[in-house]
Amino acid sequence: MAQPTAAQQRPGSTRTLLKGVDGAGVVRRTVLPGGLRIVTETLPTVRSAAFGIWVGVGSRDETPVLNGATHYLEHLLFKGTERRSALDISSALDAVGGEMNAFTAKEYTCYYARVLDNDLPLAIDVVSDMLTGSLIRQEDIDTERDVVLEEIAMTEDDPGDVVHDLFARVMYGSSPLGRPVLGTVETINALTRDQVAGFYKRRYRPEHLVVAAAGNVDHAKVVRQVERAFAGSLTRTDVLPAEPRGGTRALRTAGQVEILDRPTEQAHLVLGLPGLSRGDDRRWALGVLNSALGGGMSSRLFQEVREKRGLAYSVYSYSTSHADSGLFGIYAGCQPKRVEEVLKICREELQKVAEHGITEEELKRAVGQISGSTVLGMEDTGSLMSRVGKAELCYGTHLSVDELLGKISAVTLDDVREVAGSVLGAYRPSLAVIGPVSGKRAAKLGEAVA
Amino acid sequence: MAQPTAAQQRPGSTRTLLKGVDGAGVVRRTVLPGGLRIVTETLPTVRSAAFGIWVGVGSRDETPVLNGATHYLEHLLFKGTERRSALDISSALDAVGGEMNAFTAKEYTCYYARVLDNDLPLAIDVVSDMLTGSLIRQEDIDTERDVVLEEIAMTEDDPGDVVHDLFARVMYGSSPLGRPVLGTVETINALTRDQVAGFYKRRYRPEHLVVAAAGNVDHAKVVRQVERAFAGSLTRTDVLPAEPRGGTRALRTAGQVEILDRPTEQAHLVLGLPGLSRGDDRRWALGVLNSALGGGMSSRLFQEVREKRGLAYSVYSYSTSHADSGLFGIYAGCQPKRVEEVLKICREELQKVAEHGITEEELKRAVGQISGSTVLGMEDTGSLMSRVGKAELCYGTHLSVDELLGKISAVTLDDVREVAGSVLGAYRPSLAVIGPVSGKRAAKLGEAVA
Repeated sequence: MAQPTAAQQRPGSTRTLLKGVDGAGVVRRTVLPGGLRIVTETLPTVRSAAFGIWVGVGSRDETPVLNGATHYLEHLLFKGTERRSALDISSALDAVGGEMNAFTAKEYTCYYARVLDNDLPLAIDVVSDMLTGSLIRQEDIDTERDVVLEEIAMTEDDPGDVVHDLFARVMYGSSPLGRPVLGTVETINALTRDQVAGFYKRRYRPEHLVVAAAGNVDHAKVVRQVERAFAGSLTRTDVLPAEPRGGTRALRTAGQVEILDRPTEQAHLVLGLPGLSRGDDRRWALGVLNSALGGGMSSRLFQEVREKRGLAYSVYSYSTSHADSGLFGIYAGCQPKRVEEVLKICREELQKVAEHGITEEELKRAVGQISGSTVLGMEDTGSLMSRVGKAELCYGTHLSVDELLGKISAVTLDDVREVAGSVLGAYRPSLAVIGPVSGKRAAKLGEAVA
Repeated sequence: MAQPTAAQQRPGSTRTLLKGVDGAGVVRRTVLPGGLRIVTETLPTVRSAAFGIWVGVGSRDETPVLNGATHYLEHLLFKGTERRSALDISSALDAVGGEMNAFTAKEYTCYYARVLDNDLPLAIDVVSDMLTGSLIRQEDIDTERDVVLEEIAMTEDDPGDVVHDLFARVMYGSSPLGRPVLGTVETINALTRDQVAGFYKRRYRPEHLVVAAAGNVDHAKVVRQVERAFAGSLTRTDVLPAEPRGGTRALRTAGQVEILDRPTEQAHLVLGLPGLSRGDDRRWALGVLNSALGGGMSSRLFQEVREKRGLAYSVYSYSTSHADSGLFGIYAGCQPKRVEEVLKICREELQKVAEHGITEEELKRAVGQISGSTVLGMEDTGSLMSRVGKAELCYGTHLSVDELLGKISAVTLDDVREVAGSVLGAYRPSLAVIGPVSGKRAAKLGEAVA
């Protein structure tokens, strides 16, 4: 029988979505009135618990003038509620040695804590309080604006990080997915309390939230504690959980180039193409391809660029996915004088896999690599929490580890060849570079991807 | 009965050093002929295993012209042995989804892997092969020189990282602990095969190595596998394990200043003082003090610098220890125009704790924070492996988790006040800054710590 989605579940009901097997926990979901979803994965062999609240809002939901508002809002939730000051919030988890943090992405925002299992009720109380009772005072907006500006400045000082933002802009242009999650100095300076708080009022509502917990947790207890913490806001029985995000975003496809001339030691480059959306069935094959092309020390890119020629310290490929689109990229950092050579090798390797796929041996190794690291990752309660939380928010359904390993090992050489041809071979790659490259050399780099 | 050190153990014998209790594993040590130590911590509830070989050599053992040689050597061990090419080495662990890596510090070098428990024999075989059978060919020296130079360039592009190297130089001057682990472009370009290989021949000998494993591991099996992998080199029964490193390093003490004028977005600063050596009994109290001063979001520095005034995104204090000395530092990254203000607040906070210590509430929270995070860290087999490996190499004895938690909760307000006064209050702090600060402003910053 197919797994029900949260919207198909009667409010107030609990379903077991996955049975626990060797090493993997039981996954259960409860849907509460108001459309609030609670998903847990129980792993009784550990002593810790991770708890997170996932909100279906991110920088992609911002207009150009609001760019950075959802991340700014994330900061403000740590500044105080009706029940707690900023110091109360941070002291509570610090006092038990817990980790508490949050992050904002293009399509969601997540607030999370990892604690010893006995401290889970505390974590639930504090994080839920932040989500439901935030004050977002004008004075906090003012102070925190400077902190966000410092975060932007700090990120700017890390060119190996900024180049990925630049690449997103190259590929998505001025559309929401092309804008930086942090916003810009200009947008942050212009944002008002009402603009930031607007996202809180409209989007931090039970139907857009997924509460996730993993580790040594008792599903029924978590549900009771969350119900208590959300109290008044879970009354409407006519509201269903929000459906996973959709979208129809067309990417720029061919040979875009953007170069930021900066006095850095290395040139940082990303060469890439449109990738796959989150739900694309070819994603398992692309994962295998990515692993063989640039996923580890034995990958083609690492061997060709670093091991054989010593051209870079860091070189890898990666694949990111959104609801309706994705990116596939190759990153390398190298001496500015070597950019042309590195770029040439990366293009050749892209072309080779696009035309010929990978070998039987590479397939076997990639499947082993993904399977092994998947199972290894299951020992970390934080990873488990992220897995169930993100799956609920983005897919509405959950794969067991066995199903997941099955998907990976079912990938064939033909699947990889097909996805390599249709994704990596479909267009001329685009290029983003940050480094001391200007004038004629910059123009020549543009020609290199022509 | 006191724990025996490895040197007090008969070659070929095995001792149980710690009994396993709730959540913590049994720790056992075997000393093999040649002085090779094998330490394991067994945690049968997990499915993974971490394996590492710790070598008692680091950048501190280098002369000025050899600076960077031990780290360069670490790279070369991945380039091939009599039995395996570089690709064979990386493929072996990639194929099972394992992580394999290495790092070089000032006083030791570590090669490690984390794998599913069934793959532990493979990890032992590959990592031991790298340690015992490395070829260090001239052609690998040539190619890898460029990779190390790229790593130096990459690090240079991260000012929030480089400022810690600068601070070490400020405090230790031109002595070995003041030099960067990676070396410099000049030293790396000048190093010869013989110079690099010299460290391999002289220091990668059984008596300087600690083999550590943690997770779902069987001590006797690990010993047999390591014996097999080290084969010929474990014959000498007259060699005892090396004693933990000693040293007598005097630090520069008062008001040193170094400013690197760079066109970064933020100014990155470290304000600090001589700290404690690894074996200093006051380290538990200093840990508590560090936690209260700058160890979390509820700490004084975070509250004063970020939460109340929005002057930085990242601000924290830290304590590092070596065999004979240590450093205590405060890091902050901020807009260049705010350096003076941030510095003033950091100095005031240093002075306040030096004079008055911390409050009862802060003590309680700091003890809770360190205890909780210690227990949380025990779920990660990689952390466990590091803990037993480092303890064996640096102390020669092991503390149980109960003993460790006991040390922390025994810290009193008086202990903290004493260490705050004697460490943070003893000298004028020194300062390292990287950022767009020059001329008169730089001179004024110097005065700020005068």
